Amino acid sequence: MKLEVVKIENPDLKYQIVVGQGNFAVFTCDDLFRALLTAVPNIKCAVAMNEAAPKLVRVTGNDGELKNLAAKNALAIGASHVFVVVTSNAFPINMLNTIKMHPAVCNVFVASANPIEIIVAETELGRAVLGAVDGSAVNRIESDKEKEERRELVEKLGYRLD
Amino acid sequence: MKLEVVKIENPDLKYQIVVGQGNFAVFTCDDLFRALLTAVPNIKCAVAMNEAAPKLVRVTGNDGELKNLAAKNALAIGASHVFVVVTSNAFPINMLNTIKMHPAVCNVFVASANPIEIIVAETELGRAVLGAVDGSAVNRIESDKEKEERRELVEKLGYRLD
Amino acid sequence: MKLEVVKIENPDLKYQIVVGQGNFAVFTCDDLFRALLTAVPNIKCAVAMNEAAPKLVRVTGNDGELKNLAAKNALAIGASHVFVVVTSNAFPINMLNTIKMHPAVCNVFVASANPIEIIVAETELGRAVLGAVDGSAVNRIESDKEKEERRELVEKLGYRLD
Amino acid sequence: MKLEVVKIENPDLKYQIVVGQGNFAVFTCDDLFRALLTAVPNIKCAVAMNEAAPKLVRVTGNDGELKNLAAKNALAIGASHVFVVVTSNAFPINMLNTIKMHPAVCNVFVASANPIEIIVAETELGRAVLGAVDGSAVNRIESDKEKEERRELVEKLGYRLD
Repeated sequence: MKLEVVKIENPDLKYQIVVGQGNFAVFTCDDLFRALLTAVPNIKCAVAMNEAAPKLVRVTGNDGELKNLAAKNALAIGASHVFVVVTSNAFPINMLNTIKMHPAVCNVFVASANPIEIIVAETELGRAVLGAVDGSAVNRIESDKEKEERRELVEKLGYRLD
Repeated sequence: MKLEVVKIENPDLKYQIVVGQGNFAVFTCDDLFRALLTAVPNIKCAVAMNEAAPKLVRVTGNDGELKNLAAKNALAIGASHVFVVVTSNAFPINMLNTIKMHPAVCNVFVASANPIEIIVAETELGRAVLGAVDGSAVNRIESDKEKEERRELVEKLGYRLD
Repeated sequence: MKLEVVKIENPDLKYQIVVGQGNFAVFTCDDLFRALLTAVPNIKCAVAMNEAAPKLVRVTGNDGELKNLAAKNALAIGASHVFVVVTSNAFPINMLNTIKMHPAVCNVFVASANPIEIIVAETELGRAVLGAVDGSAVNRIESDKEKEERRELVEKLGYRLD
Repeated sequence: MKLEVVKIENPDLKYQIVVGQGNFAVFTCDDLFRALLTAVPNIKCAVAMNEAAPKLVRVTGNDGELKNLAAKNALAIGASHVFVVVTSNAFPINMLNTIKMHPAVCNVFVASANPIEIIVAETELGRAVLGAVDGSAVNRIESDKEKEERRELVEKLGYRLD
């Protein structure tokens, strides 16, 4: 068994990327995209999903660059039944429950705009996602002042009560 | 730490197999089976689930062969609190939300009728599922013609509007 | 305000019928049907949904009789944004979570193969579902023997542990 | 028991309005608003919720007009533990699952930009929502041509596959 690190391509980290495991790729690639259309008004997104037989990356979306990026990342991961969602105008909090509750989704490995690396194992049969590196590791615990600043930041982002 | 590849047994790939992580095996083995009985009318299925103490595979189902297969696969994986569902007349899209929403289920690693390999890590304490190979890896992105054929296939499978 | 009782048509009580409140009928009529296709393998069903402007019953399904029945019942209820699902080979327990979690569904009034009556209020603006009669009313509490028999019946219906 | 029809105020029908039943108003008014902030990026919305003791409409939001409208409508309905959500830049399909899955929400009566009337019953104790008129009633079933036009409309609204 070979272990490999696949770097997810995300130019200028400007897109939100979700990677997960599902099944029934010929159906799910379109249907997961359709579900995402209901998640956020005017969402721009693409879904790419790997199929084992034939060995193809399936792609659906409403933006050429996002489709290209989702497909390239799914191909780089290679593992069958893995899907990659890329979006330019929504956040994971707007999409994750829609994705998790899709009837063909097993689980979600990562959802982030950080630099992402996918840890992949390769056997003679195929490839498996083992985990995901989602940005750099931490090195200490926040101070009280940093906690306060974090809450101010969240408020500035619009998550505030009047 | 030792890494091991466990091949899931699925004669002629005729069954759908779901592998996930849960807890409270003495309860969940029966209760997840009971939940699956509500998922699809007349479903034939079996649930096997590994318990750490005593070190036992628990099995419940309504078909001898499915029970045998679920139990053998759970035993081969070995990791505690892992469950294996095997069914002969339902698809993952019919069962996954029932499984994901079960109160004792942590997550689902894989749900497929492809050849499956489970990547397992073994420590002194026990075994852990790291990921799943779900059929062979992809090697290119679909063409426009293949996308069209995929949509025709999905319609033929019954996923169509009148 | 006028109160009216609408009897749901269900020949020989052979179909399961679900009545609920949603919105965005031009989208939801098709999309709820599509979701039901994933709920049960080879489900035969129809969705009818009322739209306020234009004042139309929308219908989608994969069986002519079910479509006709769903549409007639939705028209008889009349209330805008109410939907009627009719199926010949699935039970409410196989479909209700799919329906409840659809992003355009507010709630479900009734799901049954009993004789059903929908209580409707009519104002100058339009009509509102107030509630549903789902079969005849009870008149006493089960005995211990009847409780035992009920559990035996559920087992006979296939909801049993081996 | 007195029955009353409460007309929901919605100037030029330009807002989406959701009316439902919950509990724990002192907590839920804020927490449901907070949940809605995660549903759609930059959502403009307000939540008003009626509390039985003290007899107050609680209001939270991030826009003055929406807060005013939510509060006035909640007050007009009057029934304790009823909430009214008003939003100017999201649709019910973007919010309904967030609302339905909130731990203090019982159910949703209506979610629409149609003219809405709430049917309220009044007893000596208080008031109860019985149902909702969500726009005018239907008067016939769509033709094949109208079905085709509906699907073209849904595609134009952005619900299409590439």
